Order: sequence, then C-alpha cells, then structure tokens
Amino acid sequence: MPLLTLLTDFGLDDYYVAAVKGTVLRLASGSQIVDISHQVPPGDIETAAFLLAAAFPSFPAGTVHLAVVDPGVGSSRRILAVRIRGGSWLVAPDNGLLTPLLVDAESIHSVDRSELFLAGPGHTFHGRDRFAPVAAWLLAGGDGETLGPAIIDPVRLAIVPPRREPDGLAGRVAHVDRYGNLVTDIPWDWLPTSHYRRCRAEVASHGTDLRVSHYAEIPAGEAAMLPGSLGTVELSLRGANLATRWKVGRGAVVRIWTGV
Amino acid sequence: MPLLTLLTDFGLDDYYVAAVKGTVLRLASGSQIVDISHQVPPGDIETAAFLLAAAFPSFPAGTVHLAVVDPGVGSSRRILAVRIRGGSWLVAPDNGLLTPLLVDAESIHSVDRSELFLAGPGHTFHGRDRFAPVAAWLLAGGDGETLGPAIIDPVRLAIVPPRREPDGLAGRVAHVDRYGNLVTDIPWDWLPTSHYRRCRAEVASHGTDLRVSHYAEIPAGEAAMLPGSLGTVELSLRGANLATRWKVGRGAVVRIWTGV
Amino acid sequence: MPLLTLLTDFGLDDYYVAAVKGTVLRLASGSQIVDISHQVPPGDIETAAFLLAAAFPSFPAGTVHLAVVDPGVGSSRRILAVRIRGGSWLVAPDNGLLTPLLVDAESIHSVDRSELFLAGPGHTFHGRDRFAPVAAWLLAGGDGETLGPAIIDPVRLAIVPPRREPDGLAGRVAHVDRYGNLVTDIPWDWLPTSHYRRCRAEVASHGTDLRVSHYAEIPAGEAAMLPGSLGTVELSLRGANLATRWKVGRGAVVRIWTGV
Repeated sequence: MPLLTLLTDFGLDDYYVAAVKGTVLRLASGSQIVDISHQVPPGDIETAAFLLAAAFPSFPAGTVHLAVVDPGVGSSRRILAVRIRGGSWLVAPDNGLLTPLLVDAESIHSVDRSELFLAGPGHTFHGRDRFAPVAAWLLAGGDGETLGPAIIDPVRLAIVPPRREPDGLAGRVAHVDRYGNLVTDIPWDWLPTSHYRRCRAEVASHGTDLRVSHYAEIPAGEAAMLPGSLGTVELSLRGANLATRWKVGRGAVVRIWTGV
Repeated sequence: MPLLTLLTDFGLDDYYVAAVKGTVLRLASGSQIVDISHQVPPGDIETAAFLLAAAFPSFPAGTVHLAVVDPGVGSSRRILAVRIRGGSWLVAPDNGLLTPLLVDAESIHSVDRSELFLAGPGHTFHGRDRFAPVAAWLLAGGDGETLGPAIIDPVRLAIVPPRREPDGLAGRVAHVDRYGNLVTDIPWDWLPTSHYRRCRAEVASHGTDLRVSHYAEIPAGEAAMLPGSLGTVELSLRGANLATRWKVGRGAVVRIWTGV
Repeated sequence: MPLLTLLTDFGLDDYYVAAVKGTVLRLASGSQIVDISHQVPPGDIETAAFLLAAAFPSFPAGTVHLAVVDPGVGSSRRILAVRIRGGSWLVAPDNGLLTPLLVDAESIHSVDRSELFLAGPGHTFHGRDRFAPVAAWLLAGGDGETLGPAIIDPVRLAIVPPRREPDGLAGRVAHVDRYGNLVTDIPWDWLPTSHYRRCRAEVASHGTDLRVSHYAEIPAGEAAMLPGSLGTVELSLRGANLATRWKVGRGAVVRIWTGV
C-alpha cells in the first residue's frame, strides 16, 4: 500500500488538512496517509525541518513525505521533489524545509509539470492544488525523475552545526518537546565516556552536571543530561517542564564544559 | 477501499472519536477513515457546515461523509442520509449542518432503520450507537435509498447570502482560519476586474483597498484582499493574524465599495 | 487488515506519534492505525486507563491496542502483552494503565523477547524502539503467548470502586469530557427506578435532583443527571461547561442520596 506522510502548519481546526488528503485519495486511491504533525507554528520552517528529519528514519523505504509549510505560497518559489537514498521521496516548497535530509539526496528536482496541477480557485492553497497532485502522482507509481529538471541550488537553512571547542562542546536547543525536554543538537557520543571526567551542561544561566540514562533516574526536582531519542544530548527535569522552569526555547545556546 | 470522512465537535482529548471509528471498522472492516476536524467548537453547527462544504469537493465520488455536531442528541431530531449528485453520501443530524451541500442533493432520507442502531448505554452518544452503524452500512455497500423515507423539509441554516448592492458588495466573514485570515462569502469574481476601479473592503471600522494574488505579495504589516481557496474574497495580513488585529470574528459584516 | 489503536501522552506537536506509526508500518506494512488520543496529560496513567477502557469495546476482536503513557521509560518496569477474551491484545508498560481491562484478561505476558527491540539511540523512546516492534509483531500474526512468561502480578491502579451505602450511592468523577460533563463511575442502573423516589446527586458543595435521558431535555442553565455513554451516571449542564461552573475535576467524590 503506497504510504504518504503529511507535515503542515495547517492546524487541526480547519478543512485544509482534509482537502489535501481528499485530493491525494481522489488521485491515488488506496494510499495510506500518516500525519507527522499539523501543529507546526504558522510559517515556522525550522520546526518543520526538525520534525520531518526526526520522523523520517522510522518510515519504510518508498514512502512519500509531503511537507507543506509554505509562507511563500503563490509566489515564484519552486516546488521540490527529492529522491532520497533507498527510494523514498520528499515533496516540499523550496524554502529550506528539507535541509537536514538533503545530505542523503540522490537527486533534487524542481517540479515544472504544470499539467499535474489542479486549477483550484486562487493561489493560496498549493497544498491542495499542487503539492497533493504531485504527491499522488508519486504514490501512483509515477517516475519522479520526470517531474522537472534536476537542480543543485535548493534553499538551505543556515543552521550552525554543533562544534567541539577547546574546553568543551557548543550547540543549541534544536527542539522543545511537549514534556519540556530540551533536545539539543550535540551528539551524545561527543561527551567524555568517563563518568569521572567533569561534564557540565549550561543553557542561559542554568546548568546541570548530572548524567543519567533515562528520565526515571533523575532525582525529583533536579535537571539532568541524558541521551535523547535522536542520539543527541537532552536536558530534562523529573516530572516537570524544564523549558518553562529555565525559560528556555528553541535556538538557545547550549554549552557543555568537559574540563580537563 | 470504501472511504469515510469524519467531522465532529468531540475534540481530541476524549475516547469519542475512537469509539466512532472502532464501530465503523467493526461493522465495515477495511474502510479508510479521514478526519476533517474534531475541533469544531462544542455545538457550533455553522462552523461544521462551513468545514464540511469546504472539504467536500476534494474527495472522490462515492465517499461517505459523516458529520456529528449534535446538540440535540437523544431528542426526536431526525438523522439524515443524503445522496449527492455523483454518488457520495452525507450522514448527519437534521439540524442544518448540511445546508450548503443540499443544493446538490439527489435525495434526502430520514433514517428510520432502527434495527441498524446499536443498543449502547444511554442516549448521549448517537455518534457511536446510531451514526457510525448507518455510515458503516453505506460503506459496506448498502443501498442508502432504503435507509428511510425521502423528505423535503430538512432543517436549513438561515444564512443571508452575499449580495450586490448599488455601491458595492455585501457579505460576511464565513470563517476565520488558523492564520487569522478572514474568509468571506463574497465571490472573488464579483469584484470589478479593472484594477483602476476603486475597490475597498471594510470590516468593523477597518479596511483595505489593496488587491493581491497571494500572501507573499502583501507588504509587511499591511492588510489586503486576495482570492481565497474557496473562490471568495479573503482578507489577510502579511505574517500576522488579521482577525486578532482587527478584533473580527465569524459573522462580521463585510462591505466592498466598488464606487462608480 | 490488521488493526492497531494507539493511545499516548505524546501530544500532536512532536514527531513522536509519527515515529511509532512509521515503525509499525515498516515492520507490519498494510496495518491500519486508529488514534484513541495523544492528548493524555503527560504521565497521567489514570486518564489513559479510562480512555483505553472506554474505547476498547467499540473495536473488533483481534485488534491490537498499544498504549504508551510511560513515565518509567528506560527503567526496569516491565512491558506487558495481554490477551483479552475474544482475541484482542493489549500492549503497554506495566504501570497500571491496563487495570480496568484486566478483568477480561486470558493471559498476561511480560515481554522479554529483546531480539524484537530496535537499537534506537538512548533509552527515552521505547514507544518507537520497543512497543512499536512488539505491536507490529502481533499485527504481523506473531503468537503473543511466546512474547514472554505469563505473570500474575501486573501493577494495578488503586481505584476505589463505587459503592452502595445505607442512604445512597458513592463514587467519583472518573472523567471530565470536552463539554464539561462529569462522567462518574456510578452505574446508572443502581439508581432507584421510581422517579417518585428522592434522588439527589452532590459533588463538592453543588447538586441536582433532576434526572433526564438526554442533554436537550435539561432546562437551560440547570444541571441534571443522565445515563452516560458508558452506562454510568453523568452530570451535565445544558449548553455550558459544568466542570468549570462547579469547579470540579477528575477524582471528586460524588454522592447520590436516594433517601427512603
């Protein structure tokens, strides 16, 4: 059964998500659709990029991933169809949303097959009128290589990667989850393996030097570092919301002092 | 694969939506279910009517659309099954929810096949005990014409349609979407086509005379009219929430002065 | 088509739900997945137990129900696979979540087939790395009896059941739904059947002695008792939120005086 994932900033109160799904199923009946999220803050490309990259590895090869967070809808921004190693496809506006996954791209196409597009009213809902039919075409077995010319200059988000510094590691809060955990971009295996070695994480004016392996190991009321579900350092507070407690949001600078 | 859409005011925190879906799948296994929304404000029939009518055209012929916003549950209000031109079916309480789609009705039936109903506890959850089995029966290939007698007096919402007036157009805000866009009921093609002709939209004490074709064309901080995804005039603010800024909600009067 | 229900406290803003679904579909393609809810308050095992037990009876025999509200993730808490009379399976952490359904358990297994588990990064996302593959294995037709040894000591929530007292009935608010209805645990058929017999429900310092059969029967602005969708006494306010009005939440003591 052809599998589509859907990630948008459409929210769950409107008819927008359903119109995209209905169009996909009208054009590629029998497809299975899985929501990633529709709660991306309006126009927040960076959150969409994070969520898609985080969910992607769980899906089988051959999945079509459609992501529509598209503040430039109706303008001349391109629509991308990207073939990923292993045979999955990504479809999204060319605004940086796909940045973290492009490292595995086999080919990137700028979709120009306008005969696939629907003549919907207005130019505000390409999710329904352009993205959905392109995704449906892939789901129905169409050859993505023919969707448009290969390009080499997709828009990329300018995200500073985590880095090793003389006295430790530096990165950022890549995501704050529902529980208030601070998901950083610093790989857990960059930490010193010896537990005798000093290791202190700091965000804003707060910090912790406690390292644990899972949430229940954190003493009540304390913060700790642990290896998160993406393999990066996560900062967490037992049974409470650390982001709220420390007043920290996405993008905050994280430093981990590893001393000598 | 038989396709069902589901629209309710059950919210996403309760077991209600799942109980409807489970019942449908128990009685019509292999059906595919697509959510329109479950976030309709409790008892808000007009929002439900808007969302169903807006999503409907995207779905393939033959789809069964089940809408349960039903403040009269358990009373003697009728259950309607409506056959739409092209072969889709609508199932909903007889409270006006289907009003905008009745123009395309081929037949309207008052469901009286009580042997289809489940003997669930109480009379508060017809979504599970009555609507779900009726929808499942249609999904399983049952002949909807036999669900009950044809009627000609369904409850209709009394919504004043948009109108042309001597000095312009008058209508209302039909919907406020997640982005704060004001979706009006005034057809975009009622606007004068000449851009030299004066054309000013007013809502409450606010207004704009800017006409654009898509959001990114709006200058930062300004409001504008554009053709929305339903073919009607939409009022929007670049990168911010116009409904909040103008303090305008659904039902507000919209006037478009087209001068002479 | 193998059917899975999914109940979590992951929320709808993160990639967590999608990662579980993607993993299930990667390992058991063609499965159908129905959400119960992902809006369980973080770590609220009792709400999860209520929702799962309430939704369960609507689903067909053979359904696999996966519930992940798991504050002890990564610790030594067990993973349970429970076979329910009729052939459905429950999969959940051993923390009491399954309590109300254990009365129908045919066998309870402590899953120890670690070769099924995925070597995901960290120990914080067993939903993806352990529960999803166990559920997928059942969906793919695996014999649940071989998942691990049968046990007889699952963790159970200590919930005081409703009881008959000399002058009436006593119970609790088991759930507050989206509409503000107070769903109690007192069976409706425990009420005196004669409507001439005094019958007054009290919660906190509020009360009503009105008994009706459905919401629309309640006079505007008044509270009443009615038989709810689970067969228990429900307290409701016509067209408004009773929980807010009475400032009552889950767990509040409910007394029904039935006099003499």
